[in-house]
Order: sequence, then structure tokens, then C-alpha cells
Amino acid sequence: MDLQPRTRPETLADLGEWELIRRLGAFAPPGQFADDAALLNLSGGGYGPALVVNTDVLVEGVHFSDATTAAADVGWRAAAANLSDLAAMGCLEVVGITVGLVAPASTPWSWVEGVYGGLREALDAYGGVLLGGDCSGGGQRMLAITAIGRLAGLDPSERAAADQQPQGATTGPIRRSDGRPGDLLVCSGPHGLSRLGLALLQGEIAAMAMDPTLVQRAIGAHQRPVPRFDAVRALIACRPAAAPWRVGGCDSSDGLAAAVAAIAASSGCSARLDRACLPLDPAMASLAEAEAWCLAGGEDFELVLALEPTWAEALIAALPGTTAIGELVAGEAGALGWADGAPWSAGDGGRATTSGYRHFS
Amino acid sequence: MDLQPRTRPETLADLGEWELIRRLGAFAPPGQFADDAALLNLSGGGYGPALVVNTDVLVEGVHFSDATTAAADVGWRAAAANLSDLAAMGCLEVVGITVGLVAPASTPWSWVEGVYGGLREALDAYGGVLLGGDCSGGGQRMLAITAIGRLAGLDPSERAAADQQPQGATTGPIRRSDGRPGDLLVCSGPHGLSRLGLALLQGEIAAMAMDPTLVQRAIGAHQRPVPRFDAVRALIACRPAAAPWRVGGCDSSDGLAAAVAAIAASSGCSARLDRACLPLDPAMASLAEAEAWCLAGGEDFELVLALEPTWAEALIAALPGTTAIGELVAGEAGALGWADGAPWSAGDGGRATTSGYRHFS
Repeated sequence: MDLQPRTRPETLADLGEWELIRRLGAFAPPGQFADDAALLNLSGGGYGPALVVNTDVLVEGVHFSDATTAAADVGWRAAAANLSDLAAMGCLEVVGITVGLVAPASTPWSWVEGVYGGLREALDAYGGVLLGGDCSGGGQRMLAITAIGRLAGLDPSERAAADQQPQGATTGPIRRSDGRPGDLLVCSGPHGLSRLGLALLQGEIAAMAMDPTLVQRAIGAHQRPVPRFDAVRALIACRPAAAPWRVGGCDSSDGLAAAVAAIAASSGCSARLDRACLPLDPAMASLAEAEAWCLAGGEDFELVLALEPTWAEALIAALPGTTAIGELVAGEAGALGWADGAPWSAGDGGRATTSGYRHFS
Repeated sequence: MDLQPRTRPETLADLGEWELIRRLGAFAPPGQFADDAALLNLSGGGYGPALVVNTDVLVEGVHFSDATTAAADVGWRAAAANLSDLAAMGCLEVVGITVGLVAPASTPWSWVEGVYGGLREALDAYGGVLLGGDCSGGGQRMLAITAIGRLAGLDPSERAAADQQPQGATTGPIRRSDGRPGDLLVCSGPHGLSRLGLALLQGEIAAMAMDPTLVQRAIGAHQRPVPRFDAVRALIACRPAAAPWRVGGCDSSDGLAAAVAAIAASSGCSARLDRACLPLDPAMASLAEAEAWCLAGGEDFELVLALEPTWAEALIAALPGTTAIGELVAGEAGALGWADGAPWSAGDGGRATTSGYRHFS
């Protein structure tokens, strides 16, 4: 007779997504999983502007459903989300994407055609081509997109050398870990609109009493997000002459508060947000959910940057919609707080958001 | 009353894998889907050796199962199959891979750990690092691997210029379409062993009466395939001084006959195979299935090359296991025939193999 308790094996649900990613990172070189996308180490090859690569998977029922998303929008969103990670690394140019497609044999060709049409629309809008891919049958529709982009600037080894020069490197990557206490936190646009669009599409909130223009904009923000390559261009163009290249940042796909927390954590400092400066869309400011969705709604795909104040002010002046939302300060790595001293509450969002954990719950 | 017949939408099962890939190719630049992997167009960037990218998806129940494949072998096979496509394009160096992982929340961490361990083993053996990736919950275990490699030689624009020189380019990509009538067809090793390994693992054939060494080798060939970067190195090293860089080829992952047919089709000519020269593994030559598995078993991951005869003979002399299996001849694009004039039968394998279609049946 066996009286040993049966031990259940540890599952992915036990770990949650962040712990899973942390453990998978141990199979990669140190720091390789630190950013939205990966810089390719091509030293010695005479490679000019460094290449960046990013992979996203999208699963039916988790990331999209026929109920809320037309096939062309699935394709656009898949490409745009992936390209947003390239923009968040400082890329100015998209080389292309590969697509892994899994779908049951019963899937209508018209759905696949719609998805690839949407992917192509996004590539036509932001650059790059469909490079290749693979397809297979399977029980569930799934897309795996890998995007390759090029930085505007120098490769990492050239950058290290150039940063020693008084004038600094021309441009370089944007990294989560490149924020410093004293930096202003800026974001490239308002937040919460995509979450409102999702709520409208899912019938969580009624469109009836709402301004039709807002309804249309919110649904558009959810279905057709825009990777902010224009913000990278503006960032480079308005760089103060004396400033070395140092830009902390990521995109806000996982939510604004999560983006700020990630930058603060990687940069080894704390962040203080100013409640009076939350980047709410004016049209949705009267909604009860506005502040929560602004901080933790997710999928707005704006750039969140930590910049030396002169550069931040120049960017705000140059790029309409860009606003300062707070600052990085010395303190516990990754801790969030309000500028008025009010404590940060779990409901204000941050790293361990619902969105962050939901994929394995 | 509606008397119109209901039209069922056209599904992926109706199309089959090859027609699906043909239609998806229409979303890419012309010729982009022509090879095992994609050459990146990085002209103007000062990029030296051209980069190659390849994406494979592997789905549980289609490409692997717990019954026949341990987690570490799933990882190794996934990486090796993908790296084989890089080798088949002429790459000498692996930059790295990204991994998209989909798995149910109930999946044991130990399985994921095993898979990434196997991926890492393959990277440690052939070069490159885990660059990044993404993970999500889903109903079925699935891996999407994107591998990036570097050609040994020049980028496409430099190559075009160098090919005008008397001595030709140093090296370049291997392409399916670069075969010419008169080329010898060579392959880098014996075929059929991986299919025998699968038959043994699935209990389709009994191991009992078989030489234990053969059993072990066959299972090893199936579980731990080897990307033939060594064959690319030998190919470059033994190139005759006067020969321009022109190498037709692909890997034999879809079967030997399918590889030959693909090279012939892309090169606009026919192929004749010599039945006396089929690359059977001597130890399995007495099996009834040997010839069928050699031609259409698939997943041997050898290189199949179309080379000018002097170069082919040099490679055969330089690389043990490499043999001539036939030649390319003028004729209908993609048509296969036997050197003795016997007609090619459907059972001899070719493009429309069971393996080619099975993923959407």
C-alpha cells in the first residue's frame, strides 16, 4: 500500500505568464528577454543599422474571436502589435514578417485570405513584406508572427564606441533599462480608447448613450491599432544637440501602468505619476472607467518613454498628443507612486495586471 | 422559400497544403516563397553576408506526440528542422531563434523545460542563441520557431556584381531554381532511416527481429536529426577554381523525391534518378519498405543539390556519405523519371506526397 501523497506536477497555470517568461529567459543569454524585442548581435559582419526581431503568438479565444474581430482586423492587429514592438525598440524600418498559421482543416479559405489581406495592409502602410512562413492543421486557429526591423542608428558595438565621443551616437535602440532618476515620463498619445472599443464590441458597455464619433474612434482604436514609427522619427528629429543617445522605453500594449513599472524596474528606480496629467482621451473622460482603462486597459500601443527633461519637452512640443505623465525617481526598483504622495493601489494597475496573467489562467 | 442550394465555403481541407501555400505566396513579393527559407533584402545597409530567415510551426498530434517523442527531442527536432532549412539555403552561421509557445494551462512545466532544453542543446551544437519569443495559453501544444542565419558569402547585390567577374562570387545562397540540365543530383547522406525510426516508435514495424544497432540508429535519426552545416562547409571548400557560384538545392525534409521534384520544377527542367544509385542505408537495404522510405519517407534532413559535374564529383570525394543519385535533364519542369527509362509511378513519391498533404487532411 502506498501512503505517499501523490504530488501533482507544477503546471503553467501554477507559474503564471511572468514567472514562465522568467524561467524561459534562463535558456537565453543574460538580459536577452529584457525588452519588447531582441537586438540581433551581428558584430563582425559589417552590419550597419542593427536589426531587431520580435515574435508574437495570437490564439483564437485568447487574443481574438470571430465575434469581435473580422478576419482582416485579426491580420492588421497581429501585424500592428508586432510592429509596435519594433517601434518601441527604436526601429524606423520594417524589413518584413514571417507568419506561422495553424488552423483546423474546416477553416474557410475566406478567413485565411482575410487575415493575410489585413497583414498585407499593415505592411503596405508601415513597410516590409511577407517574407515567408509555414502552415499546419491543428485544433484551434493560431498565428505566430515574427517581425524583423532595422534601427535608425548604429549597431551595439559602434554605439558603445560612439557613446564615448562628446557628441554621442547619432541614434540607437530604445531600452527599458535606459531610464534614469530625473527623467520625465512621456507617452505618445491618450490611453484607454482601445479598452473602451473592446467593451463596446463585447457588449460590456452600451453604445446607445455614447457619442457616435467616440464609439467609432474607440472601435477603430481596438481593431486598427497604429504602431508609432512616427513617434520614433519625431524623437530622433527633436533630440537636443548635446544629448547623448539614451532613451528608456517600451510600448503600452500591456497597459500604461505596466509599461511605466517595467521601465522603472529595468532602470532600477521608482516612478511617480501625476494624476492630473493622466493621458485620458478627452471624449471619454466622463466615463466611470476612464482612469482605470487609461492605466490598465492595455493594447493602446503608444510609446512610453523616459527622457532627459530637455529632450522630453522638445518631443512634447514636436509631436501632437505627446504628454508628460510623471517622472522617474530614485527608489525601489519598479515601485509606482502618485506625485501627490497618495499610495499606489492594486486597482491602479502595474506589472501584475489581469492582462498580464490571463493567458495561462 | 429559398430553393438556392447552400454553397459550402471552400475550406483548407479542400485546398490542401500546396495550394494553400501557393495562394498565400500571392501576398508576398514574386518568388518570395520559392525556397526553404527567405533571403532578407537588406540592400543599402552595408550588410555583409546576407541573412536568411525561416519559420516552422509544430503542432501536437500532427508533428509530435508524447507517445513517440520526449520533450527534449521535441525541442531538438524543432530546432534542427528549422536550422536544416538555413543550411539548405547555404548558411554557415546561426544567429539565433525565436520561439512562440502555445500550451494549455494544465501543461506541466517539466515538459516546457524539456522542450527548451532540447532547443538549447541544438543551439549549443550548431550555434546561435534563444533571441526571444512569446507564449500563450491555448487548447493544444504548439511551437512556432523562427531561425535567423547568415550566408557564408555575399549579399544578393554584391553577388550579382561579383558573378560578372571571371572568378565569380566567393559564395552565395543555395536556391531551388539554380539547377540546370546537365547538373548531377547529389545528396549528402542515406535516406529512409528517419522513417524507419518513426515506424519503430509507432509500433508499425517490430524491433524484435532487427539488428539492435540499426534500431538505435533509426530511432536516433528520427529523434535527433542533424542539420548539415558540415555539408555546406564542404561544398564551399571543394568548389572548383573556375566554377561560378551556382548551386541548386534544398533539404529533403519532405522526402527525397519531393526535394528532387522541387529543384527540377523551380529550375524549369526534368530529373532522372538512377535506381541503382538510390541512397539506401546499407543496413536497411533488405527491408521491403527500403526503397519507398528512401524516396518518400521524409525527415532525413539531408541536402539535395544540383551541381555542375566537376563540382559534384569534388563534393562526393570530399564528403563521406555523399552520392550522386541522378541528373537534371531538359524536359517538362518538375517531371521525374528513371534513368533506365522506366516510368515514374505515383508510389515512387514526388511533390504530392502523403507527407505534403497530411497537415490539412
